Amino acid sequence: MEPKYGGNIGAVARVMMNFDIETLYLVNPCPLDDACYARSMHASSVLDEAIIFSSFKDAVKDLDFLVATSSIDTESEKKHLRNPVFLSEFSKQIFSIEGKVGLLFGREDYGLFNEEIAISDLMVKIPTSEKYHSMNLSHAVGIVLYQLYLEHTELPLKRRNLDHVEKTHLYEAFEMLLDSIDYPEHKTEKTQVMFKRMISRSMPSKWEYHTLMGVLKNAAKRCEEKRKK
Amino acid sequence: MEPKYGGNIGAVARVMMNFDIETLYLVNPCPLDDACYARSMHASSVLDEAIIFSSFKDAVKDLDFLVATSSIDTESEKKHLRNPVFLSEFSKQIFSIEGKVGLLFGREDYGLFNEEIAISDLMVKIPTSEKYHSMNLSHAVGIVLYQLYLEHTELPLKRRNLDHVEKTHLYEAFEMLLDSIDYPEHKTEKTQVMFKRMISRSMPSKWEYHTLMGVLKNAAKRCEEKRKK
Repeated sequence: MEPKYGGNIGAVARVMMNFDIETLYLVNPCPLDDACYARSMHASSVLDEAIIFSSFKDAVKDLDFLVATSSIDTESEKKHLRNPVFLSEFSKQIFSIEGKVGLLFGREDYGLFNEEIAISDLMVKIPTSEKYHSMNLSHAVGIVLYQLYLEHTELPLKRRNLDHVEKTHLYEAFEMLLDSIDYPEHKTEKTQVMFKRMISRSMPSKWEYHTLMGVLKNAAKRCEEKRKK
Repeated sequence: MEPKYGGNIGAVARVMMNFDIETLYLVNPCPLDDACYARSMHASSVLDEAIIFSSFKDAVKDLDFLVATSSIDTESEKKHLRNPVFLSEFSKQIFSIEGKVGLLFGREDYGLFNEEIAISDLMVKIPTSEKYHSMNLSHAVGIVLYQLYLEHTELPLKRRNLDHVEKTHLYEAFEMLLDSIDYPEHKTEKTQVMFKRMISRSMPSKWEYHTLMGVLKNAAKRCEEKRKK
């Protein structure tokens, strides 16, 4: 809504592309100047394809669900207008809505006016410090898109709990190492539990598991050979 | 680490203050110029109190836990160096660490070098689009601080489920309204369930509850009076 600085628009375009969002509507923006394109880096296509409106009503008329964003909410519960849901709640609910969702961000200086918030279906709040609410426009966009991306995208976790066989082998290898260094028998059980807990907390990947197994087995073997000499 | 643009440093200072973070370490930064102070808005105190180091080792030597950040990870699981945890996992674990935690952000152009990542205790990844990983420096800082703030701060939720008495009164008021408009008896039960479900999903605040009660009761009363005429 009526952004004033080309640099901010460029920064918004860049962070949109960082989170796979392509469609930018601009209502009465400042010119998309050199600063704007410079700040967009590799996201100039978002700027080239941005749709520019001269009226707010035109911009929102093809949207099925309009979401106003703010880092400021009302002090009073009685004022329904600015009674927000938090971004982290909203991100859990929004993907169940069918239709075209618009995220509305306010002016750098005056934010959104009450009549713009009233037209919106929902107001979403980015939680910020009590001491300093006011966020840079592109930071607000970045944080909202990050939270939505996080909710929508399955993170490709490479780490996982080891399966039973892997665990058994790993704990055996560690036990062999303890044996090979003549570890005091009365401490063995306790130390094995500690190792087990540490491995569980670190949730090793397959490759980390194999690397660690290699080290433990090799060390155990060498210590064993040394002990036999 | 070696930021090149004053504007970026200023934007970082601002978003730090948005999330109650005060201590900024800068390693070999560009000058903190007018653009830097302009972009920091009301967070110039963060810049005034920033600690400037000429060597990376000096900057990290009083930190107990150093966390490198990146939106790029390694393709191969075999490369332990850049094997990351995701920001959303990290934010759940970090507050159990005792001591001084440093969050390390790379250069605008070259990011972090391998030797800097190797010194770090952990590498944290901000999940981004496969198509365009590279984030603006202050956006990366903003998103990391938002996720940590979210984990650390209890959101002051004003909405909650209504208690049993409130629910009973609300559903009774709705039933009275249905009665007063001569709602078809065979549809009543279904419509009451629908109302119940809608109220539950919307999780009204105390004030929303009272406002809605007022409307329903008033409407039911007027319809009833009209019916009696």
